[in-house]
Amino acid sequence: MNLHEYQQLVDSELDRLVPSEHTPPATIHRAMRYSLFAGGKRIRPILCMEAAHAVCGSFCGALPAACSLELVHTYSLIHDDLPALDNDDYRRGKLTNHKVFGEAIAILAGDALLTLAFQVLAQLDIPPGRKARLVAELAGAAGTVGGMIGGQVADLEGTGQPPDARLLETIHHAKTGALLRASLRLGAITAGAADAEYEALSCFGEHIGLAFQIIDDILDVEESSAALGKTSGKDAQQHKITFPAVHGLERSRQMAEAECTHAHLVLESFGEQATGLHQLADLIVHRKS
Amino acid sequence: MNLHEYQQLVDSELDRLVPSEHTPPATIHRAMRYSLFAGGKRIRPILCMEAAHAVCGSFCGALPAACSLELVHTYSLIHDDLPALDNDDYRRGKLTNHKVFGEAIAILAGDALLTLAFQVLAQLDIPPGRKARLVAELAGAAGTVGGMIGGQVADLEGTGQPPDARLLETIHHAKTGALLRASLRLGAITAGAADAEYEALSCFGEHIGLAFQIIDDILDVEESSAALGKTSGKDAQQHKITFPAVHGLERSRQMAEAECTHAHLVLESFGEQATGLHQLADLIVHRKS
Repeated sequence: MNLHEYQQLVDSELDRLVPSEHTPPATIHRAMRYSLFAGGKRIRPILCMEAAHAVCGSFCGALPAACSLELVHTYSLIHDDLPALDNDDYRRGKLTNHKVFGEAIAILAGDALLTLAFQVLAQLDIPPGRKARLVAELAGAAGTVGGMIGGQVADLEGTGQPPDARLLETIHHAKTGALLRASLRLGAITAGAADAEYEALSCFGEHIGLAFQIIDDILDVEESSAALGKTSGKDAQQHKITFPAVHGLERSRQMAEAECTHAHLVLESFGEQATGLHQLADLIVHRKS
Repeated sequence: MNLHEYQQLVDSELDRLVPSEHTPPATIHRAMRYSLFAGGKRIRPILCMEAAHAVCGSFCGALPAACSLELVHTYSLIHDDLPALDNDDYRRGKLTNHKVFGEAIAILAGDALLTLAFQVLAQLDIPPGRKARLVAELAGAAGTVGGMIGGQVADLEGTGQPPDARLLETIHHAKTGALLRASLRLGAITAGAADAEYEALSCFGEHIGLAFQIIDDILDVEESSAALGKTSGKDAQQHKITFPAVHGLERSRQMAEAECTHAHLVLESFGEQATGLHQLADLIVHRKS
């Protein structure tokens, strides 16, 4: 399956999971759908499905669990873009949620996407023990201790501080790394992975998570706003701690390549069932937006 | 156990469940705890524990599940108070979360409390099938279709519209009723209630949920700001649809009494194990703040 086919599959499942634009109160469902279908690359759901594939040779019904990751990712983007946080007017070349629906609805739409993510996991058609593990895993990755919210807060507090390699890695590990690692773990749990498989996929997730963030920082420096679909160079303007700021562009690129190499290595035991994950690792490091 | 002892029990469990003020990033945990320990009455957790008691004659380990309801309730208060929503400066006589920590942290603290609620449920020491049901129930009650967020949106959209009895009940059923009913259901599920017990407790939850909201609206008209700890008469200022506005004060009071009477009736089959729930129903209708 190529990337576009994957994205279509994820989009059609998201369409099934989120109440229609006509379900009352309609405004909130329109707002949720606006950001959910704003052209996201669906990297987290695809990683989740490919992790399941690595374990059992098919997607093993991981599609709805995969979509819960996109729900959480989208909630975090809506809240991050708010005036009180990053105050962004554009995201992926489109007006941000609060610019279209107002701040009140944007806050509630984020809340609703987060809530729906857990509802989706709790209602999966898999053994209940796996459902509870999925919920705990996603909540941990989205939470305050080593999770996404914790990373966001550390980032807010780190803004304007002198560039520091250790702080940088702590922030990114939590802010983007935790949810990317959870993408792999949710796939593994859904597919009933053995402990060793779960650990290997977690390790893969950590390496490509770090590579993903390094490339994100590099793209923010290098690319034009048009290609990124958002305001570029914004990290530097806001004095955020980034990989190029701490290590320089060349060293940052080498670091991303090294993470990618490690990621490939930990997949060895999965053989051909992990072909999709190998391709995704390369894609993440060589992407242009 | 009297109300104060209950509240102490809930407070000490919440203290155990939420990361300490010293756990990094400390700001977010301080903000979460600030609102969580701002003098809430703990009605939802107490209802949950008493529902478990009605089913099995003890709290049956329902305390942490009970606390997940207070986490969700507190998140909703923090987000509701934000400038973009109700724009309240005071809550329970204390400055609201965003007045103390700023809007960015208040938004994230709400997100974090919601996330933690699901993590707590997923990690309970009960059969996994019950955990998954608890998560689905709480997410549904907090969500957009007949749940808390849906009620909040309908309320925002209904503000300024002519008073309408049907719209009023739809809004309150979702905005406060769903989480109060879920409080009973979470207790029932944790205790392993039979279907008939679950239904009876749900029905009790609906009656006292409606009574609770009617009394809330009456208090907003009648009481001074000092007794309520928040700005009173605000509903009328904001042209919100309320029970006194639609039905008048006297009729509203009768309606609350009628709901309370129904609530008592549906508990009959539980006998003495439901004594606590009977007392709570009376307390809700006769409260002064």
